[in-house]
Formats: sequence, C-alpha cells, structure tokens
Amino acid sequence: MSDTSASPDRIDAARAALAEQYLRVRRFSEQLCAPLAIEDYGLQTVVEASPPKWHLAHVSWFYETFLLRPFLPGYQVFHPRFEYLFNSYYEQTGTGFWPRHERGLLARPTVAEVYDYRRHVDAAMTHLIAECPSADWPTAEQRLRIGLNHEQQHQELLLTDIKRHFAHNPLRPAYRADLPTTPPSIPRPLRWLDFEGGLIEVGAAGEGFHYDNETPRHRVFVAPFRLADRPVTNGEFLEFIQDGGYQDTRLWLSDGWATVKQQGWRAPLYWEERDGDWYLMTLSGMRPLDPAEPVCHVSYYEAEAYATWTGKRLPTEFEWEHAAQGQSIAGHFVEDGWLHPRPAPQGEGLKQLFGDVWEWTGSAYLPYPGYRAVPGALGEYNGKFMCNQMVLRGGSCATARDHIRPTYRNFFYPHERWQFMGFRLAEVAV
Amino acid sequence: MSDTSASPDRIDAARAALAEQYLRVRRFSEQLCAPLAIEDYGLQTVVEASPPKWHLAHVSWFYETFLLRPFLPGYQVFHPRFEYLFNSYYEQTGTGFWPRHERGLLARPTVAEVYDYRRHVDAAMTHLIAECPSADWPTAEQRLRIGLNHEQQHQELLLTDIKRHFAHNPLRPAYRADLPTTPPSIPRPLRWLDFEGGLIEVGAAGEGFHYDNETPRHRVFVAPFRLADRPVTNGEFLEFIQDGGYQDTRLWLSDGWATVKQQGWRAPLYWEERDGDWYLMTLSGMRPLDPAEPVCHVSYYEAEAYATWTGKRLPTEFEWEHAAQGQSIAGHFVEDGWLHPRPAPQGEGLKQLFGDVWEWTGSAYLPYPGYRAVPGALGEYNGKFMCNQMVLRGGSCATARDHIRPTYRNFFYPHERWQFMGFRLAEVAV
Amino acid sequence: MSDTSASPDRIDAARAALAEQYLRVRRFSEQLCAPLAIEDYGLQTVVEASPPKWHLAHVSWFYETFLLRPFLPGYQVFHPRFEYLFNSYYEQTGTGFWPRHERGLLARPTVAEVYDYRRHVDAAMTHLIAECPSADWPTAEQRLRIGLNHEQQHQELLLTDIKRHFAHNPLRPAYRADLPTTPPSIPRPLRWLDFEGGLIEVGAAGEGFHYDNETPRHRVFVAPFRLADRPVTNGEFLEFIQDGGYQDTRLWLSDGWATVKQQGWRAPLYWEERDGDWYLMTLSGMRPLDPAEPVCHVSYYEAEAYATWTGKRLPTEFEWEHAAQGQSIAGHFVEDGWLHPRPAPQGEGLKQLFGDVWEWTGSAYLPYPGYRAVPGALGEYNGKFMCNQMVLRGGSCATARDHIRPTYRNFFYPHERWQFMGFRLAEVAV
Amino acid sequence: MSDTSASPDRIDAARAALAEQYLRVRRFSEQLCAPLAIEDYGLQTVVEASPPKWHLAHVSWFYETFLLRPFLPGYQVFHPRFEYLFNSYYEQTGTGFWPRHERGLLARPTVAEVYDYRRHVDAAMTHLIAECPSADWPTAEQRLRIGLNHEQQHQELLLTDIKRHFAHNPLRPAYRADLPTTPPSIPRPLRWLDFEGGLIEVGAAGEGFHYDNETPRHRVFVAPFRLADRPVTNGEFLEFIQDGGYQDTRLWLSDGWATVKQQGWRAPLYWEERDGDWYLMTLSGMRPLDPAEPVCHVSYYEAEAYATWTGKRLPTEFEWEHAAQGQSIAGHFVEDGWLHPRPAPQGEGLKQLFGDVWEWTGSAYLPYPGYRAVPGALGEYNGKFMCNQMVLRGGSCATARDHIRPTYRNFFYPHERWQFMGFRLAEVAV
Repeated sequence: MSDTSASPDRIDAARAALAEQYLRVRRFSEQLCAPLAIEDYGLQTVVEASPPKWHLAHVSWFYETFLLRPFLPGYQVFHPRFEYLFNSYYEQTGTGFWPRHERGLLARPTVAEVYDYRRHVDAAMTHLIAECPSADWPTAEQRLRIGLNHEQQHQELLLTDIKRHFAHNPLRPAYRADLPTTPPSIPRPLRWLDFEGGLIEVGAAGEGFHYDNETPRHRVFVAPFRLADRPVTNGEFLEFIQDGGYQDTRLWLSDGWATVKQQGWRAPLYWEERDGDWYLMTLSGMRPLDPAEPVCHVSYYEAEAYATWTGKRLPTEFEWEHAAQGQSIAGHFVEDGWLHPRPAPQGEGLKQLFGDVWEWTGSAYLPYPGYRAVPGALGEYNGKFMCNQMVLRGGSCATARDHIRPTYRNFFYPHERWQFMGFRLAEVAV
Repeated sequence: MSDTSASPDRIDAARAALAEQYLRVRRFSEQLCAPLAIEDYGLQTVVEASPPKWHLAHVSWFYETFLLRPFLPGYQVFHPRFEYLFNSYYEQTGTGFWPRHERGLLARPTVAEVYDYRRHVDAAMTHLIAECPSADWPTAEQRLRIGLNHEQQHQELLLTDIKRHFAHNPLRPAYRADLPTTPPSIPRPLRWLDFEGGLIEVGAAGEGFHYDNETPRHRVFVAPFRLADRPVTNGEFLEFIQDGGYQDTRLWLSDGWATVKQQGWRAPLYWEERDGDWYLMTLSGMRPLDPAEPVCHVSYYEAEAYATWTGKRLPTEFEWEHAAQGQSIAGHFVEDGWLHPRPAPQGEGLKQLFGDVWEWTGSAYLPYPGYRAVPGALGEYNGKFMCNQMVLRGGSCATARDHIRPTYRNFFYPHERWQFMGFRLAEVAV
Repeated sequence: MSDTSASPDRIDAARAALAEQYLRVRRFSEQLCAPLAIEDYGLQTVVEASPPKWHLAHVSWFYETFLLRPFLPGYQVFHPRFEYLFNSYYEQTGTGFWPRHERGLLARPTVAEVYDYRRHVDAAMTHLIAECPSADWPTAEQRLRIGLNHEQQHQELLLTDIKRHFAHNPLRPAYRADLPTTPPSIPRPLRWLDFEGGLIEVGAAGEGFHYDNETPRHRVFVAPFRLADRPVTNGEFLEFIQDGGYQDTRLWLSDGWATVKQQGWRAPLYWEERDGDWYLMTLSGMRPLDPAEPVCHVSYYEAEAYATWTGKRLPTEFEWEHAAQGQSIAGHFVEDGWLHPRPAPQGEGLKQLFGDVWEWTGSAYLPYPGYRAVPGALGEYNGKFMCNQMVLRGGSCATARDHIRPTYRNFFYPHERWQFMGFRLAEVAV
Repeated sequence: MSDTSASPDRIDAARAALAEQYLRVRRFSEQLCAPLAIEDYGLQTVVEASPPKWHLAHVSWFYETFLLRPFLPGYQVFHPRFEYLFNSYYEQTGTGFWPRHERGLLARPTVAEVYDYRRHVDAAMTHLIAECPSADWPTAEQRLRIGLNHEQQHQELLLTDIKRHFAHNPLRPAYRADLPTTPPSIPRPLRWLDFEGGLIEVGAAGEGFHYDNETPRHRVFVAPFRLADRPVTNGEFLEFIQDGGYQDTRLWLSDGWATVKQQGWRAPLYWEERDGDWYLMTLSGMRPLDPAEPVCHVSYYEAEAYATWTGKRLPTEFEWEHAAQGQSIAGHFVEDGWLHPRPAPQGEGLKQLFGDVWEWTGSAYLPYPGYRAVPGALGEYNGKFMCNQMVLRGGSCATARDHIRPTYRNFFYPHERWQFMGFRLAEVAV
C-alpha cells in the first residue's frame, strides 16, 4: 500500500525501485527463453502446458489490460487482436479468449513479433511507472505488484512447460545441456520432528505482498503432530514401486486408482526404465535416477498412496504453515540454477520446506473463513479455482526465491504431475 | 458392539430384534419397487444412477459377500456369477465387477430371478442371525448393521435413480401418481440465527451406529457465525435465475462455469419452463413449481453461485454439525410418504436441518484427523472416496429417519444434482 | 401397380389376399418375440441394434405414418408422442425422432402398451385395406407392400439384435434353447465355377416387388470370372486365424487394420476361445464351432483380408447377380427354423447363394445409372444411404424366403458384423 | 521400365536427365517453403494436414527407405530415429511411426536440421543415380520415379496444408501476399456436351509413368451421358446456399447430413460471411468471393447435395476419363503461380478438366478388375486405401502439370474439404 503522505522524493525513489524491479523480472523471462530454438516457442504438447511464446505474450497482456489501458492516457495497444489471443481465462474482460487447448496452433504472431510486443509494453510501463498521477498510483502500484508476481508464476510455468514439451519428443532434447549435476548418492535417513499444535494462527497479515487467497489470517485448531524432516526421496519411492504400489488397489483413492488404470501409470512422470535401470527426464535431458533427491512429478494420488503404504499421511496445509513459520527461506530456487531438486542437506531440523519441490498437503483448496475475492476481473485470479484442487506449499527449484513465503498457497488438481511436485510425510503425535 | 457377557436370553432377544429389523429393511426395499413395471427395473439412463433391479441384487450381494460366505458354514451361493454381476466397486473381493455404465444392459437375470435371489439370501440370513456362534457374532453383528444401513442408502438411491430415469422419458411417467401434494404457497421470510462457535467437538463418539468416516471425534475451531433458519426456497432461487444468474460468469467457480456452459444448465435439474411457467418433474410426474419448497436438485456449483449472488456463503460441515447438535431429527423423511421436499414449517429456531433436502456444505470430503479405514474390502466403503467430493448433511425426503444423525457425512461430486440436494446459507457473524 | 380396370370381384379377392398377407407378416413379428422375457424387450447394448420393443412399435408407426394418417379418414393415432418416439430416421415427416442411441432408455410405453398399439394399428389397417377408395388404392397398395417388406426386414433385425444383446450378457442366455442343431462336420472341398461374363443386364425389371435401389435395370460389362461354389467355412477361416491373419498388417485395408487394432479383433464376432477350443454364441446359446458351416459375423474388412490371404478376391455385386440369375431360391431361411447358417449341401453347381449368410461383395453401395429416389419421406428408405457402405447379396438364415430375389441389394458399413454376414470367393478367369 | 540393352551412353544420358529431374523436384519443395517463417514449419491444426517440416522430411525418408538403404552400399542414415519420426503409415517397414495426430508436437529436429537432412539425402541420391549397378537400376529407377511423384503429391499437400493451418489463425495471415489476382467477374453460362459412351476402355496402359491403382486397363460399359463444359462456380453454389441448401435434409446423403449438423457447415470451407458479403480465405489471405471461379473446398457430400438440388448428378470416374481422353492438359497448375482456381475460359468444348480444381466423381475408390498391389511396403502406397473413399480426377491449381494424366485417380474421404476440390455436373443423355 502506497503511503500517500510521503515526500515526493521518497515517492520517486520507490517508483524508481519498482521500475527497476519491473525490468529485472521482465528480463528474467527472456533469459529463461534464451536457450530455446524458434521452433520450441510454439509447442503445446498437452492442454495444461502452454507454449513459451504464449507465456511471453500473456504476461505482457496482463500489464496492458490491467495497467496500460486504464491508467496510461492515449496508450495504443500493440495489436487489436492480442487481447483475444493472449487473455488466459478472464471472463470479465469481455474479450473472450482463444481456446486454451489451441495455444500451440498459432504460428503467428511470430516470436520476433512477440518480443516486439514486449518492447512496446515495457516502454509504456516505464512511462506509466514514472508518470502515473498520485491519485491512480495506489491502485496501479498494487496491480503492478500482482503483475510482477504473475510473471514470476509464468516463469516457473515456462520451465515446467518446456520440460513437459521436450519430454514428449522421442529425441528427449535438453533445454540446457550445461546444467550442473552431482552423482547419485545415498539419502539421509528420515527423522521425525514433534509439534505441539494448539489454537494457532494461519494466513497472511497484510504487511508484505501476498495474494488474496492467503487471507484473512485466522485461527485454526491443530492437534499435536509429527513432521518428517525432509521430503520423500526417489529411493524411498522406488521401494514403493518395487513393492507393487502401483498395482495394489488397497493403497489408492478411488479417483486415483481410476487414473492409474486409465493412464497406465507405473512410476512418477518423467521416470523411464531401461534395461532395469531408472532414468529421469530433466531440463538437461535424461539422467540416471539419484536415490537421494526428493521424488518429484508425482500427483496427489501418488503422494497419498505412498503415505498410506507407509502408514503415515500428508500434513494439512495448516500443519505445514505452522511448522514453516519462522523458518528461513532456504532450499534451491530458480536463481540457484540447478533447475532440478537437490538431495536434502545434512543437519538438524526441518529441511527443504522451501524450494526444491512443491509439497502436496492433505488440504483441499478452499477459501479461508471470511475470504472475499477482489472485485472485477482480477478477482478471477485465485478465487474461482477454489474447488476440486489440493493445496501445495513451499515453492520449488523453478520458483523465484522472493516469490515464496510461509503463507503462500499453490493449488493443482490431484491428478496433475507436471509441476515440480513432491511431498513430505506427517503423522499423529505419539 | 455386542456384550459377550450378557445372558443367553438377552442375547436371543437382541438377535431376534435384529432379525426383525433385517426383515423390515428388506421388505421396505421391495415395497419401494412395488409401483414399478417390469420394464422399469432394468433402466440406466445415466452412469451414476443404477437400475432398480441392480440395487435389489447388489444389497443382497453385500450380505452374501460379507456375512453368508464367511460366517454361514455350507452356504451355497445363489448363482456363481452374481458376485461379478452385483459387486459395485469393491476391488478387494477379487471378483472384479461388471462395468458400472453397463448395469442397464443386463436383461438377465430377470426381475423374478432377482426376487428369488433375495428370498434365498433372506432365508440364509435369518438362519445366520439365529445360529451364528458367539465367537463370530460381534463381527457378524457389526457387518449386519453396516449391511442394513447400506441397504437404506440404496433405498434412497432407488428413489433418486427412478426419478432420474423417469425424467429422461419424454412421456414423463409418474412413479406414483397417488403421492400427496399441497398447493403452491408463499415462502416464510428467512431469519438468521447466531452461533458463538469456539473450540468445539465434532464427529461420532462411538455409542450408536455410525460410519467410520464420522470418526474420530475431534476438536475444531469455529469462529462466530450466523445460519439461515431454513434452506433456500424455489422462489428465492427463481429470483437468481431471473436476475441472469446462469449467465453471469462472475458468480461461478471456474469448474462450475465450465459445467454450466458444457451442459447448457439454466435451472436446477428437473425444472422445465413451459410458456413462461415453471414445472418440476417429481416422483408423481410434472407439478407446478411451489415457491415455498426448498430448492432441490442443485449442484454444489449452483449452491455456491447462489450464495455468492447473495453475498453470503455455504456453512462448513463443522458449523452445520455444531448447529445440529441437540436438535431433534424433525423434517420429512421417506417414511412420511411425501417423497418430495416440503415448505418449511412456521415457528422459531432452525428448521429442516434434517430431512427434506440434503444440504451442501462448503467443506471438501476429507478424512478427519487420525481417521483409519477398516481393513479389508469393507474399508473401501467410505475412505477411498475422500477426494474431489463435497460434504452434504442432514438427509432428505428420501432418507430413512433412523438412518440419519448430526454427525452423518454424505458426499457427492460438486457437479452432481440427481439426489435431493439443496442448501442453506451462512455468513460471518456481525 | 394395381389394375384399375379389373372387375370388382378380382379387386376384392386381391385385397383379401393382401389383408391375409398383412396379418401373416404381423403375426410372425410377434411369434419371433414369444420366447422373450419382458426384460428383454427394452435392451439396446449397441447403438446399431435396437430393442425388440422398438422394432415392434416402429414397424407399426410405418403403417400409421404412410397409410393410416393419409388414407384412413378420421383415423385416431394411438398416442400423439409415438410419431416422435418410433420414427427411425425419416427427416421429412417433420416430427423429429428420439435419438437412436437412446432407444434402450424408454421403459415406457410398456411391452403391453406396445402390443396394444399393434392391435390398434392392425384393426385400422384391416379396415383400410377393405375400404380404401379405388382412387387411393394404387398408392396405398404400393406403400402397403413396402410396409410389409419393411416389417420383414425388421423381423431379421429382431433376431440379429436379440443375438447381439444376449451375447453381451456374461450369462450368455439362449433366445431359444430348443433350436435344432447337428454335430460338427467336415466341410466339403471348395470347387470353382466359370462364368463368361460379357455385356450383361442387372437390376430389377419392374414386374414383382422390388426396392427402388434395384432400379433401373441396366447393362454392365463383366469380364470372365470364376466363383466358388459355396461360401467360405468356419474351418477355412480358422486357418486364416491360425496363420496369424489378424496380426498381419499386409493383408488388411488401412481402415480395416485401424479397426482391428482399435477393437482388438482376433476372430469373427461371437467366437470365443476357451482352453484352446472355439465356441460360437448362437441364438440357442454357446455351441462348439462347426468347421463345415459358412463363416458368419465377419466384417467386410475381414472378408477382404481373408480373400487377400488366399490370393483371391470378393465378387462384385454384378458378378454375383449374373451368377444368381435363374438359380432357385434354395438355402436356409428364417422359416426353416435353424436361425443359424448350415453346412453347404452335397452336389454340383452353386450352393447357398441364397439364405444361410448374406455375402459381402466388393461393390460399394451406389446408385444405379439413372436411379431416382421416390419423392417424399419414403424416398429416404434407400437412397440416402448410398455412400460409405458395401453391398451384400442373397439373404440369410434370418431372412424371409419370399423377401429375397437375385436383384436384392442389402448394404452395411464395412466394419459391421452383427448381421448374419459371410462371403464367397471369386477370381479372374484363367 | 529401363531398357537394359541400351548403349552405355544412352543410359548415362537417361540417368543424367533423371538426376536433373530429381534436383528440380527437390528444389521446388524448398521453393514452396521459402515464404514460411520458421514458426510455420511445425504447425498441425488438424490431423489430416501435416506440418511443412514433416512433409520436407517425410519425402526424404522415402528415398532413404526405398532407395538409399537397399541400393547404396555403406549408406549412413542421417539420424537413426528419423525412420520412426518420418514414416507416414507404412506398416511393413517394421519401424512403426510417430502418431499422425502428433506431427505438430515435434519442435525437434529443427527446420535447419531438416534442411540438413535433405542435403544429406540429395548428396547420396545423386551418387546413387550415377553409380547404381545396372542390375539394380531397373528397380531403383522405378522407385525413383515413384519417389518423385510422391514428392510432387506432397508439394500439393504442402500448399493445401499451409492454407488449412493459416486459415485456422484468427489473424488470417497470407502465405504469399503477392499472389496475382483478378477482379470478381460474371461466370460464363454452363453448356452441356453429349457423349455416346459404349463399351470403352479405361485405365493406364503402361507406357508412361502411372500408379498401380490406374491398372489394369480394362473395358467398362458406359451409357450415353452429358457432361457440363465447366465446373460449378462460386456464384452457382451461392444460389444453393441462398436457397437453403444447407438446411434442406432432402438434398443430402444420410452421412452427409449428419456431418452438416455435427460440424455446423453452412458454406464451403474457407468461406466467411461478413456483413452480408462473402469472402474466401486464400493463400494470399482473405479475398472477396468471385462468382466466376469454380467452387472449391467442398466435400463429396456438398457436391452430391448440390447435384441433387439441380436434378443432375456427378459423373462416374469412367465417364470423366472417357471425356478426358485425348484432351490436352490445359488449366491452371502449380507452375502457373495462381495457387487458386481461375474462372473458366471462353470457348467451345470441355474446359478445366485438368487443373484448377480436383473434380469429385460419383465413383467409390475401388480396385480395378484384376488389380494387384506391388509386393512389399510400396504396395501400401495405394491399395490399402481402397475403401470408404471417393475418386477425384483432373488435378488442381496446386498440382504439378507433369504429374497429371487422364487416367490419374485421386481419392479422399467424402467429408474432406481441405484439398482444392470442386466438381462438374453430369446427366443422363436425353
């Protein structure tokens, strides 16, 4: 929230900082696309993963729609049809949108034209940040912060979607063959940490940036519980596979079992067995499975079935947030450049709550008590998805570090696997 | 739980009472089918609604599988293939099951043969209840009680499925043309009741019969809230329709809006507009809409959209249960013979919490903390469905009165409408 | 065409004979249904096979629509919605029709009501035949003859559809357990017969009853060819299976191979392998395969692949008709009561051209040169199907003997198998 | 067939000519792709239209598979997986093939790599043509000629597929904005030409190149008929539309009517109505409809319905071929650079039999009497498609002039429209 009584100098400095942050975020999206061939930009191999070109244009559309059109007098849109082509799903803009499952069928605009579009928007945004009248600025600033976080989310999707598209190609190309790696290793034994629970508070309290779905902060009662000190590893999950986990109906939710049978699942996404050895498709191509890494690209169904197999369960999102409060935002994020989850480090206490892999919780994605979506099209950002999805927490190796916080709620359908998704076990305190 | 130290006389009396209850439940299933033509028994117009014949056979299969085979020495099954034909979805019986969407494609066994099957099972069950050795009786009794509640659930499904099948026929036949009715009336104004909430307890505590999904009893924190004294009525819901509710994307969850568009919904299930007037398909055929009746046959999506339109919300299942504790099981149930929800009665306090219409809550169907499914195939009864569904509470005009209790959790997918489903509004306390 | 100059007596006698024929045809439809349970009448296990009840009503609708409504003054329809429920596909009646794939979802009208409908139509038709004014009679008589042939076609469908529905039931019930049978036998060796061909004439010449698709009679040039003296047998087709015919892509048409893979075909419809032996589902239940019987329930694709495997081909419909001209209508028809194809008899010359199994030809179902459909809805009987289907000739064990003739053209899509369909080989003359 | 007794000099000259032809054909494929952006090369907007990149690679795969591997000793394939990626549908190569509907999901190999692949194949082919031992040459030469004709067919597909992909884009981009055009004009009145028919000969007689499906040459009897002197025009077809042709069920084949309703057809493919005026999508973008041009991009169903509306019919392929014998290969072909059908010229006699638009005939695509596919994978070229398709004749504005001849048989499914497909009327001689 902007302080409207602040001195002009302080306002200028704040705006300058935000302008710089804007350009930094924008630049990073393009850096992520630098390794791509032109041919890669248009790919959509499954409906939920968009083409890189679409991501680059859509995040620009967001600024155009919610900032430049309403707040920059005389702004000329780059192309009159882009509001239709690059709207994702906002019904209230009134423009409609190109069907999601056909995003890969648009060879035009070309990649060069989309980069021109970005230049056009960047110039206008720089202008707006500098010149926006004070009366409009609080709303504009608020929307700009949402816009930057929105672009960060699409940066993560850029990586997960590219991985999905490249894995579909039988040549299994590498997005970046030069990514660092370490040899497979032995996982650390898992340790359990006790939490007393009680009548705790969860949710965002308003000071820093947060999404509306993290509010209002409110009380929940949490019984005593225990939490694993690290996520489940590839090695542990392999035991589940080898014990026939994917064939044992008793371990699965009904909808999960139907999915296993219909999709023919027998391992996490991107796992391939070749002559008895397991390999993973990564952003640097095929790699041997490292037993010490957190298992990744599993659905909620698989996480839940594994937990049942062990006699444990997944934590609720409130248990997770309770444990995460006060923890430092450690773990591997996109800036660390691994673009793949890393084995848990040595040491005491909770490890990898943040970064490496998103952690499925046992909580359905529902509104917090008293939640209200913001009015208008931006209210469609989070609220309309509060049904049929499960909450994930903590961010991943593809998330920006400054994007994440203990109250952050991510959400996906329980069958989805293409994000960097893992999980951590919990159990009732003894 | 049977008291194994009780005197033989008391045991005999208890068993005799249970035998009588068994026969009463069994008889009621057949009474419900008495108005049917032979042709009606085999109908399956949508995958989720089964043919009456299948229900009659399936509930018998339940006793055969979980009681007669394991506990009655020398029991001869009625037909060796029925364990395949009439298993619903239990994977752990190892027999497989005839595909759910093809239950209507089995002209054989005939209706008469299914009634013979029931006779066969009833004779054996009577024998088992009388003669079961004391050592087996506690387990057998427990399973028998589940079996009877299971059959009661299928009695409700018999009615809702028959309604679904008959409504599909352009002739709109009546299941029973002789059902009682009253003329359309003016709904009572809605009143709000305040609840303090706090750290309350919910769930079943073990004395009477309950399903495993109601346990364990546990504490939850509930903030102060208000609850409508009665469900939303047809008249109120009609205002939502007339205000363009089904065309206003802002009111809907994303998955709900997709369903509205894909299915072409513009009113609750079974509503038909003819020359500007609205009619409902009921178990006694087409009837003019009564504005005072609780709205019925709405999905979770519609209930949620209506609540958004009013600026209110649905109660959580915990708020609902908290309000219901100590209330009498009033309302109209299947024994009352209306087979249709009735207008709310006059008077103070909460009305129609029980009976008339199941009430959608804003809670996802998830396990209670510490929940464990029972081992074996019976553990598939409830636990494996704890994903993607929403909780409904309170029973309906098609539920048996002695089947319901404040802790009872029913669950359906958010798009489903063919049960007698309505809802009640809640809001944050002011 | 009726001779309008004939004496009144002759006219009366002709009408009386037709009235008798009408009742005979009508009675036979009901005799075919006598073995059914009420439950069987409503079955539709696949979209192309209708419920028996629907057939009984639809053929009655035909008389009501094309004869009673236009020609019987004051005729009262039995039920105002039946013109919608029991129209099959005639667009020009303007009534629309209940969706074909939902014919099995109509429990009402009941079977008894459909028989009442038949009584109602029969009484009116008897009246019409006797009382129709001479001016209308030529048209009425022509339509009546079509109506009777139409009902005969549905009698055949009654049998093939019942067989399809019963085969879908895992209990494999018998339509009639009392059908005659003979023990499996050794097939007669196949012999080839030579035909000179030349500029021949094909098609119907107008004297007796025929459909419009058999006209106009016209000349075609046929090169010399040879024809097998009998259809391919089960034993011969089994060799094809055992030689890997269903796995050898080289033998199949592209669309055929796609169907084989998609449907998982590995034998004709109704064949089942149990412990190394083959059985067939028949109208009297499961029977061991008889190597001497004509192979039956094969698609055009299978017939064509078999022919390719042997180095032969299927005859064209013109070759077939040329060979059939002057042959007696021998073979087994529905009146013979086998309801299953029989082994070819001993003796010289062509055998089983007529009856036993319809014979796929290599001819696409197209209009003859100069063909014109009759105007109005009856023109939809044959003409609108002249695309994407293949011609079959000769009738089957489920066809009425007086329904068939050398010029008769039957037609089905090349993937269809549920009729009594077999084939005969041809080759170029040497 | 190569004359193996010819002198070495003549052989060298023949090979040199063929080498030159090879390079000319190869170069033309690349010229056709010159206007494309890199992004366009990977597009597949519908399953039947492949990406340009795929075409470029597939035609190269053809030479590699059928010529270089078997006949060039020591040939190194460009990439071991390309035999899987770029095989179209040949089952007998044993390599399998990448699913047809996913050809657009392969960003890699890149466009540059595919051009490298072409260079690699061209070098090897040049070597093979020069050095192939005489013993292999007859087979190699035969296959080379098929390969060149095959590439010509894919050149036509390149254009029709690009048109299809670009028309899918709401921006309606032009493939080449510089294509020539002329203003809309008034169509010439249609005139009828009489043919006597008789016992004629059709099919290829073996001297020049032809496909196996044009053989053997054989006699057919054709009754006297009349043929329109030019194809049906846009202006004429517009009258059909304005007369309600797309709403009149009486005009349509049953499968055609089902397609009209399911697809929502109300005009030929690529026609768009804007404010009452009609426009066509062309390879140079949107253009106003020219009434004088041949109607194009109509299905067999539409051609047949139009013919029914006029009381005429489509010619058989034999009538067409009979009329075409001895006619010069006039009309507009790909080399003429219009890439769009042109209005018929003035003058007497048959016009536009060749070029401009392929002409649907009323003949199903079936084998000629005595037809035999060549053994091996190349036998899959034509023969396995002889079912469910209709014959088209004459070539189009996207066909190479030296690719076409009177006996040439093209074939497509009756619902397909994306080729340059039109039609010409015929009728029975009076």
